[in-house]
Amino acid sequence: MPGPETLICHPNVVLGKGSLVDPFVILGRPPRGAQSGELTLSIGVNAVIRSHTVIYAGTTIGDNFQVGHNALIREFTVIGNDCSVGSGSIIEFKVAIGNGVRLHSNVFVPEYCRLEDGCWIGPNAVLTNAKFPAARRTKETLQGVTVGKKAIVGANSTILPGVVIGPGGLVGAGAVVTRDVEAAAVVVGSPARQVARVGDLRYDDVDALVYPDAARPE
Amino acid sequence: MPGPETLICHPNVVLGKGSLVDPFVILGRPPRGAQSGELTLSIGVNAVIRSHTVIYAGTTIGDNFQVGHNALIREFTVIGNDCSVGSGSIIEFKVAIGNGVRLHSNVFVPEYCRLEDGCWIGPNAVLTNAKFPAARRTKETLQGVTVGKKAIVGANSTILPGVVIGPGGLVGAGAVVTRDVEAAAVVVGSPARQVARVGDLRYDDVDALVYPDAARPE
Amino acid sequence: MPGPETLICHPNVVLGKGSLVDPFVILGRPPRGAQSGELTLSIGVNAVIRSHTVIYAGTTIGDNFQVGHNALIREFTVIGNDCSVGSGSIIEFKVAIGNGVRLHSNVFVPEYCRLEDGCWIGPNAVLTNAKFPAARRTKETLQGVTVGKKAIVGANSTILPGVVIGPGGLVGAGAVVTRDVEAAAVVVGSPARQVARVGDLRYDDVDALVYPDAARPE
Repeated sequence: MPGPETLICHPNVVLGKGSLVDPFVILGRPPRGAQSGELTLSIGVNAVIRSHTVIYAGTTIGDNFQVGHNALIREFTVIGNDCSVGSGSIIEFKVAIGNGVRLHSNVFVPEYCRLEDGCWIGPNAVLTNAKFPAARRTKETLQGVTVGKKAIVGANSTILPGVVIGPGGLVGAGAVVTRDVEAAAVVVGSPARQVARVGDLRYDDVDALVYPDAARPE
Repeated sequence: MPGPETLICHPNVVLGKGSLVDPFVILGRPPRGAQSGELTLSIGVNAVIRSHTVIYAGTTIGDNFQVGHNALIREFTVIGNDCSVGSGSIIEFKVAIGNGVRLHSNVFVPEYCRLEDGCWIGPNAVLTNAKFPAARRTKETLQGVTVGKKAIVGANSTILPGVVIGPGGLVGAGAVVTRDVEAAAVVVGSPARQVARVGDLRYDDVDALVYPDAARPE
Repeated sequence: MPGPETLICHPNVVLGKGSLVDPFVILGRPPRGAQSGELTLSIGVNAVIRSHTVIYAGTTIGDNFQVGHNALIREFTVIGNDCSVGSGSIIEFKVAIGNGVRLHSNVFVPEYCRLEDGCWIGPNAVLTNAKFPAARRTKETLQGVTVGKKAIVGANSTILPGVVIGPGGLVGAGAVVTRDVEAAAVVVGSPARQVARVGDLRYDDVDALVYPDAARPE
C-alpha cells in the first residue's frame, strides 16, 4: 500500500484542510530556474488530487478543487474556487481560471488563456496561443484564448489564438474556431460558423439545432 | 529497481495467472463513496498492465488484456477477452466493451458507450455522451456512442452523443460524426458524409476511396 | 522527498553528463520479447527528463534533450540533438527524428514517421500510418508521415498515412491533411487545402492569411 515514497511534496506547499492526495503525485515542483521550496504552491480546503498528477510551485488554487489522474498544472497559474480539471489535462503557466470552471479530460490550455466563471471545456479540446509557432517573434505575439462566463467548448474542438468566446457561447464538438464567438451564439464546423443562438435550443431538439445535419428520421 | 512501493494494489483485486504489472500502477482504486477493498476489480489471465496506469475497483476485465502506459479505466466498466487499451487512453465508468476490441492511444470513451466485438478505435479519437454539457438536465439526457462489431473509428475523429456506428462501418481520420453510420459505410469529413462502402475498397486505392481528395498523381 | 524507489532505471542505460531526471520516470524499459538490460538506451548530455515519463530500451537520443511529464518514447527510435517532446506525447517505435525538432504536448507519432530537422508539431496533433487499420494487410501497408525541415504542424491537426509535408510547410490548427503539402505551402481546413505560401505571411496579418476567415474588424 502507499508508502512515504509515493507522494513527492516539495517544501512551501500549503494544502487546505480536508484535502486528499493519491499516490505518485508531485506537489510544488519548482519551475525552471527556481529552487525547490523557493515559490509557494497554495491549494484551498477540501481538494481531491488524484494519482500521477503534477502541480508546480508558484500557482494558487481555491477551495474544493478536484483534479483527475495524470494531469499537469504549471507555475504562475491562478484557479478559483469549485473548479475541476480532468485526467490527462494540461494547463500551462500564467493561465487565469475563475470560479466553478470545469475542464474535462485531455484538455490543453496554453499560457495567457483566460477561462471565466462557470465555463466548461470538453474532452480533448485544444486552446492555442501562437499565431505563428516556432518563429522569431512567436513569444511577443502570443495571444491566449478567452472563454467567457458559462461558455461551453465542445469535445475535441480547436480554438485559434486570441479568439474570444463570448459569455454563454457554445462551440460544437470537433469545431475549429477561427473567429470570435458572440455571446450565447452556437457555432459548429471547420471553420466554425454560427448556426443558432443558445436561447433557441430546447433539450428535445438540441442535436438538430446544435448540429443541424444531425437530425435523424426517428 | 522496482520495489514494494511502486505498485499500489488495493484489497479485493483478482488478477489472473500469467499477468505482468509494471511499476507505478494502481489497481482497485475505490471510486468516490466507496472504501478501499469494498468493490472487486477482476482481471483475467495473462494481462499485461503497463506503467502509470490506473484501474478502478468495480470493473471486470477478461483474459489476455493488454493496456499501455498512463491509461485510466474507471469503475463499473466491463471489458471482454482479448482487448487492448493504448497508452494515455481514458475509459470512464459504465462502459461496455466486447471481445477483441482495440483502443489505440489517447482515446476518450465516456460513460454509457458501447464498443462491440472486434471494433477498433484510432489514436486521439473522442467519443461523447452529453448533448448539452453543463446544463441542468445533462445527466438525464446522456447518451453514449455505440460502435458496432468490427467497425473502425479513425484517428482524432469526434463522435457526437448517441451516434450509432453500424457493424463494419469506417470513420475516416479527423471526421466529426453527427449522424448514425450505416453498416459497412465509409464516412469522412466535418460533418461526416458517406463516400463509399467498405466492400468497394481495395488496398491499392484505399486512400483514394476513403479520402477521395487524397488521390495523388503518382 | 524522492527516494530510491521513485526512479526505475534498467541496466544498460547511458545517460549523459549534466542530465536531470524527475521522480516516477522509467528508463530503459525492455520492449516485448527483450530482457531488462538486453538493449541499450542512450541519451546524450544535459537531458531533462520530467516525471512519469517512460523511455524504452533500444532507442538513441542526442544531446540537450528535453521531455515533459507523462510522455512515452518507445524502442528503436532515433532522436537527434536539441529536441524537445512535450508532456503527454507518445512516440512509437522506429520513428526517425532529426535535430532541433519540437513536439508540443499530447502529440501522437506512430511507427515509421520521419520528422526532419527543425520541424514543429503542435499540441494534440496526430500523425497516422495505417491506411486501413485492423485489416489483414495492415502491417505490410503501413506508411508513416514525413514532416519536412522547418515545417509546422498546427494544434489538433490530423495527418493521414504516407503524407509528405514539404520543407517549411505550414498546416493550420485543426486541419485534416489527406494529400502531400508542397514546400512552404500553407494548408488549412478539413480536408486541408492550400490557401497561401508561407513567404506571403506577415506577422500582422498572419491570422487573416493562414486562417482566411479569421480577419476581424479591428
